[in-house]
Amino acid sequence: IAHQPNDVIRKIVLTIDTMNPTVKNVEYAVRGPIVQRAMQVEKELREGVKKPFTEVIKANIGDAHAMGQKPITFFRQVLALCSYPELLNENMFPEDAKNRARRILQACGGSSVGAYSASQGIDCVRQDVARYIERRDGGVPCDPDNVYLTTGASDGIVTMLKLLVCGEGASRTGVMISIPQYPLYSAALAELGAVQVNYYLNEEKCWSMDLSELERSLAEARKHCNPKALCIINPGNPTGQVQSRQCIEDVIRFAAKERLFLMADEVYQDNVYAEGCQFHSFKKVLFELGPEYSDNVELASFHSTSKCYMGECGFRGGYMEVINMDPEVQAQLSKLVSVRLCPPVPGQVLMDLVVNSPQPGEPSYTTFMKERTATLSLLAEKAKLTEQILNTVPGITCNPVQGAMYSFPNISLPEKSIKEAKALGQAPDMFYCMKLLEETGICLVPGSGFGQKDGTYHFRMTILPPTDKLKILLAKVKEFHQKFTQQYS
Amino acid sequence: IAHQPNDVIRKIVLTIDTMNPTVKNVEYAVRGPIVQRAMQVEKELREGVKKPFTEVIKANIGDAHAMGQKPITFFRQVLALCSYPELLNENMFPEDAKNRARRILQACGGSSVGAYSASQGIDCVRQDVARYIERRDGGVPCDPDNVYLTTGASDGIVTMLKLLVCGEGASRTGVMISIPQYPLYSAALAELGAVQVNYYLNEEKCWSMDLSELERSLAEARKHCNPKALCIINPGNPTGQVQSRQCIEDVIRFAAKERLFLMADEVYQDNVYAEGCQFHSFKKVLFELGPEYSDNVELASFHSTSKCYMGECGFRGGYMEVINMDPEVQAQLSKLVSVRLCPPVPGQVLMDLVVNSPQPGEPSYTTFMKERTATLSLLAEKAKLTEQILNTVPGITCNPVQGAMYSFPNISLPEKSIKEAKALGQAPDMFYCMKLLEETGICLVPGSGFGQKDGTYHFRMTILPPTDKLKILLAKVKEFHQKFTQQYS
Ligand SMILES: Cc1ncc(COP(=O)(O)O)c(C=O)c1O
Ligand SMILES: Cc1ncc(COP(=O)(O)O)c(C=O)c1O
Repeated sequence: IAHQPNDVIRKIVLTIDTMNPTVKNVEYAVRGPIVQRAMQVEKELREGVKKPFTEVIKANIGDAHAMGQKPITFFRQVLALCSYPELLNENMFPEDAKNRARRILQACGGSSVGAYSASQGIDCVRQDVARYIERRDGGVPCDPDNVYLTTGASDGIVTMLKLLVCGEGASRTGVMISIPQYPLYSAALAELGAVQVNYYLNEEKCWSMDLSELERSLAEARKHCNPKALCIINPGNPTGQVQSRQCIEDVIRFAAKERLFLMADEVYQDNVYAEGCQFHSFKKVLFELGPEYSDNVELASFHSTSKCYMGECGFRGGYMEVINMDPEVQAQLSKLVSVRLCPPVPGQVLMDLVVNSPQPGEPSYTTFMKERTATLSLLAEKAKLTEQILNTVPGITCNPVQGAMYSFPNISLPEKSIKEAKALGQAPDMFYCMKLLEETGICLVPGSGFGQKDGTYHFRMTILPPTDKLKILLAKVKEFHQKFTQQYS
Repeated sequence: IAHQPNDVIRKIVLTIDTMNPTVKNVEYAVRGPIVQRAMQVEKELREGVKKPFTEVIKANIGDAHAMGQKPITFFRQVLALCSYPELLNENMFPEDAKNRARRILQACGGSSVGAYSASQGIDCVRQDVARYIERRDGGVPCDPDNVYLTTGASDGIVTMLKLLVCGEGASRTGVMISIPQYPLYSAALAELGAVQVNYYLNEEKCWSMDLSELERSLAEARKHCNPKALCIINPGNPTGQVQSRQCIEDVIRFAAKERLFLMADEVYQDNVYAEGCQFHSFKKVLFELGPEYSDNVELASFHSTSKCYMGECGFRGGYMEVINMDPEVQAQLSKLVSVRLCPPVPGQVLMDLVVNSPQPGEPSYTTFMKERTATLSLLAEKAKLTEQILNTVPGITCNPVQGAMYSFPNISLPEKSIKEAKALGQAPDMFYCMKLLEETGICLVPGSGFGQKDGTYHFRMTILPPTDKLKILLAKVKEFHQKFTQQYS
């Protein structure tokens, strides 16, 4: 008998047709095809393939350490002490680092970071988070019982969405998200089978939120689903804006009036660069609006160890605070998080250090402040640089990078390039970014991965590469854009 | 106007009635009401409340470090070095620890464990996992592309189930799980809206799997759902059995014949104590059965840093290997894991050390082997001790603890206690365990939290407490059981 091809005799249970269809609907641009191609290109370079460039410069993901940012010394000292407590007997570490490590170890089962913690997170860490939030918000009280430590902010966001989403047909839960958005949101909503309700940020007004647009979006959504929640990212990813206090007030009043659960993604709360801009937490503004709001509006806010000045993405630390959550629902939340046992303890340790950093008078204070300030100043400088250079390119228009770590410039693409892209079945800005990668080695993410107004095109780039590389990157983008425009005109 | 009570004027979006109903169906006994009560009791003791005991002894969760087990020195040295690479310049660490740390750091973005890794896990770690699996399985090949690092085994298991589960009504996905089970499975299935298909382990034959029972269970399930997967935990939690090679063969043939996707939870693969017992990985047996099976049967197997001799639960390290997975589905899996960015990097480091531990000739080898052997021998001793003492109690029958970390003895409960429990709306073994906790300070988990044959009652206890405490615990259980039996007879 002739040997039958494998796929005929194989009896596979799990195929693309039998698998969970909601998973198939998930998209995640930040690690999508362009990044996969970039990794191939890097491999080709290593293998000696000739290219018009010698290295790939990645500006596709907000991964500070990968881009050369150095960790905060104090944080890493405490982590080393917690990992290997024998080091507590050495003289090489400052006393405050040792004290922090001792305190955390004491709060761990068997004094080991290798024990499972409480599912909600280590008690003393949650207490420290609560005190941090109170300081940050000018004394608005925070109950540690409302704080949940998480596996990065991603985990907290997905968990909250999981609680919210249900229903079928016209009563399916709708969740309002900004467009452009961070694609975790669309991915999680697709996976949960929720309705993604888009509201557009106002590019003309520096990516601010617009009350009339929120109203339009909600009214539209109510025709076919049950909108229950409104997500805000502030400072914004991918758009780099910092929302004004007024705007946040408007959003809270809107949520109260329309009975929407607020989800405030505030992972970039220390990343504010532009003059006149300031970070206002949704919680603080909520409480300043008075009891009519602060007693009624439900809010979950998210923070992470991955961004700000620490950029410790690999540790997967984070927290969420829930406000005005129904106690019965909160009991369900506590049960739900217990299934995964606990968030990674080293990430919890790091979160603790972020919210309980060295204080004036402690031996590590000076170094800590120097490192923190240096990192944030450098980011502010690169934010400015990025905006300035991009705006010198004819056909590229770029809002100021007020905060976060990204620029999301508008690019005009020649009609011919749009046609060619479409003929290839590609989004025009994907076509553009792929060409950019192949010709210059620069890896950006097309705007279509984040969502954008129909007929507009963008890319997202991080401001994280070291200044010298960032300058090269910007110069190459400039040159490429001009060449591309010519070629397709 | 009189002040209205808060719950009248509050306009809450998310209530127990409007929240996701599948979340409400989730149960998780290992951290359920009995554990919450135990924590209260501990607090009461601290506050000076008089009790018939002075401390709570917890045997409710497989958390080795919390029970006093010491971490492996080498692992923690490498973790400290990776956290704070300045330590590479110190003389206090052995060269092999430094080399491991250097190699891992080199594989991290920006040479920092604070960078996001590839979503599937760090390349070199996946390669080390693949080589470990090959050694373990006597040379059966393992492709690193089929290895996914995870946030503990929990994450891998939930991710695989997420891929598998879909459909409504009679075509809803059914997943076969052993009863008694580890409640992560029932919780995840409830959350995903899948049908939990129970097959009972054979308590009379030391909790082995029984082909006729698998057949019964499957035939039953096919009447009302679409069974697609079969989950096995070996060595078993909560039941402590180690399946024989014959039994594993039978299960694989069954899965092949019935077209079921196999999920092998092998997190206790080093925890085998009983003479004549040996760990056989499902993968190895699958390949030994020849290409008819090894080319066709789909298998996902799971491992973790949380168990075995390391017990590093807090780091949330783990991996899964997928075999014979449809390439299109695997692409979907890779996409899905990218949404959460990456598993915690310190957990990945730890997983690497587990699969790439010190080798003969390396400076850390002797200490490593001494520590590993000591831990495993102590566990073997405690397994024996637990079985022996429990079997001296009239009304308690206990299978040998062949492996894993648990005993799941059968307890006979007097009719009167069963009636009283039911009158209180409690499972009879919950009633028993609650009384045990209140009277002796011992925290066990009732069998009903894991599932058991109707009309039988059990509790699960870990063998992890230090030997002296374990002896106290067993003596107290013995005394309590006799008193309880008397009281309700
Ligand atoms: C807006 C926003 N939210 C959440 C996250 C998730 O971060 P993590 O899960 O690393 O905390 C990111 C990461 O880039 C982000 O930009
Ligand atoms: C059988 C089994 N599988 C999976 C897990 C999950 O372990 P982790 O997520 O800590 O790796 C456990 C934990 O006790 C277990 O007993």
